[in-house]
Amino acid sequence: MSSMYSTFAFGKETKQGGFTKFNIQRNEPGEHDVQFDVKFCGICHTDVTFADPNTPITKYPLVPGHELAGVVTKVGDKVGDVKVGDEVGIGCISDSCQDCTYCDIGEEQACAKGGHSMTYNADTVHGHIKTGTGFTQGGYCGSMTVHRQYIVKVPKGYPLEMTGPILCAGITMYSPLKHWKCAEGGKRVGIVGIGGLGQMGIRLAKAMGNSVTAISTSPHKEQAAREIGADNFVISSNPDSMTTASKSLDLILNTVSADHDLTALIGLLARDGTIVQLGVVRKPHAINQLIFFRRVNLSGSLVGGMKDTQDCLDFCHQKNIMPAIEMVTADQIPKVYEKLSAKNDQIVRYVLDINKSI
Amino acid sequence: MSSMYSTFAFGKETKQGGFTKFNIQRNEPGEHDVQFDVKFCGICHTDVTFADPNTPITKYPLVPGHELAGVVTKVGDKVGDVKVGDEVGIGCISDSCQDCTYCDIGEEQACAKGGHSMTYNADTVHGHIKTGTGFTQGGYCGSMTVHRQYIVKVPKGYPLEMTGPILCAGITMYSPLKHWKCAEGGKRVGIVGIGGLGQMGIRLAKAMGNSVTAISTSPHKEQAAREIGADNFVISSNPDSMTTASKSLDLILNTVSADHDLTALIGLLARDGTIVQLGVVRKPHAINQLIFFRRVNLSGSLVGGMKDTQDCLDFCHQKNIMPAIEMVTADQIPKVYEKLSAKNDQIVRYVLDINKSI
Repeated sequence: MSSMYSTFAFGKETKQGGFTKFNIQRNEPGEHDVQFDVKFCGICHTDVTFADPNTPITKYPLVPGHELAGVVTKVGDKVGDVKVGDEVGIGCISDSCQDCTYCDIGEEQACAKGGHSMTYNADTVHGHIKTGTGFTQGGYCGSMTVHRQYIVKVPKGYPLEMTGPILCAGITMYSPLKHWKCAEGGKRVGIVGIGGLGQMGIRLAKAMGNSVTAISTSPHKEQAAREIGADNFVISSNPDSMTTASKSLDLILNTVSADHDLTALIGLLARDGTIVQLGVVRKPHAINQLIFFRRVNLSGSLVGGMKDTQDCLDFCHQKNIMPAIEMVTADQIPKVYEKLSAKNDQIVRYVLDINKSI
Repeated sequence: MSSMYSTFAFGKETKQGGFTKFNIQRNEPGEHDVQFDVKFCGICHTDVTFADPNTPITKYPLVPGHELAGVVTKVGDKVGDVKVGDEVGIGCISDSCQDCTYCDIGEEQACAKGGHSMTYNADTVHGHIKTGTGFTQGGYCGSMTVHRQYIVKVPKGYPLEMTGPILCAGITMYSPLKHWKCAEGGKRVGIVGIGGLGQMGIRLAKAMGNSVTAISTSPHKEQAAREIGADNFVISSNPDSMTTASKSLDLILNTVSADHDLTALIGLLARDGTIVQLGVVRKPHAINQLIFFRRVNLSGSLVGGMKDTQDCLDFCHQKNIMPAIEMVTADQIPKVYEKLSAKNDQIVRYVLDINKSI
């Protein structure tokens, strides 16, 4: 039995209650674990979904947050490559079986034995992480302890407050770009939805050397999209604009999490192109299979493995890619969630400053 | 202006009429053309669709048939590698632009300038084939003339009457098997729907060295499926049977052209697996995109290019792959169409014997 310690957190103790500060438990680091003080935690749209009283799968007390960054306070005896004082982060994955085909190849997000444990709201089935509740609690908190496997090391000089969004939004775009062979550049990449995820998609795809088409329902995002790397801008609600890009893209990363016209987007794919669905759209799409006859592909992706996550952060450091962020404190969470629930009209990721929130 | 000649055909002169014998026109072979006497023509489910009075796009007089095989009667001066007396066939493609990215690489089925001309019911926009009606008329006839590009040479010793089904059903399965890297074997391939297309899928996938799972709603097809090469048999209407094959397949070729539960079939794909839709299902599928998060792919395919079609026939010859066929005469067409309209309960391709039909 590992001993436990207490740390403060910002979350919802009950379904109907609001955000408050309360204490949660974490395991003292074992020999393979790393403990760190959380300094910053990005706010993802997923957090809003889990905090919604209408989301049936949410477990309470809920502490959201899977974009953590902070400073190491303790390391286990068998952790050789992380030391006290190091800057580190963790993203969406905080545990997995460490003993299956996918964990073995660094694709922990596809763990075949029970799936990966999300950093919050996941049953603690793999046993490396403990909270005393039976499920994980996330990064809106003072301290975190996880197995070294899920730790990402922040490269010297990369801003700690920008690290969290790379570990969720960044890797979510980086992993499919790499898997569908865009990491070496030379492809035509479309990014649908220019928000927290989409901005990372544009920056990464461009830095890899691809031609990038930003696709949005919001004409006023064109300038900002071009400033961060988009070569082309298509207004998805304008049929003429969509026609200009017809059959022109090798890969589309679709970040939209509202209902949308998937058939129209598939029309932008060149033969052998792939559209990758990344948003949590719950309503089924009506899809006529005849549109696939010209050999276009519909797929999806979910975050990315730990090796790719480290590579993604290192790549952002090397290419000077920084997400546009806006710092907020815990008392602003309700307002931020309201903004994210509405159409995300700003190309920005909100980041919780833990020290300033206490 | 090329001069025209007359040949007999079996078809429907009007939407409401039945099948009769009448004369049609074809162009005398130009310098790049090959003319041949049609000896056999396979009957595809597509023929049934076009002959249906409720199909709005059918042009009359309709002469179906895109699985032709016969003996060369004339060749143009610039055709070097086909001579009078040779056995040849043509499949679904009888013309294309011959001057685009896809025609250039032998993917005429994806012709970027106007699309390929189907062997019947297609506007004769590319100009190499003529019928005097402005649209193509197919293989239930006495003679055919096409550009050499669309001719497939029948290997010595391969049965001419079995050739037609290879040029449609065969290539429709061969092309996606090759594209999705199953031509070298070692993959786990599922074939859904064990009829005219499905039997070719099983035979080809097995001969390439893959493990093959036949998937059908009909338990009684198990024995026949195993006899032609299936290693496993799954009953798609039985949830327990489907569970045994969960997440086990790298590639699924889905030949079903009736409404079906696509989500359940996607559940059979291993991570990074692909399901290829090949049937003409007109009703949209309702698909929740969350099922794609484990990186499975939905795609489609339409026949295959001329080079692959020749390769497919050569491969069938080399591996002694022969479709199960049943010979019929023109007077039996209505009965055959009736059988094909109902659930195709036999693993067989019907082939029209032209000589015996006159």
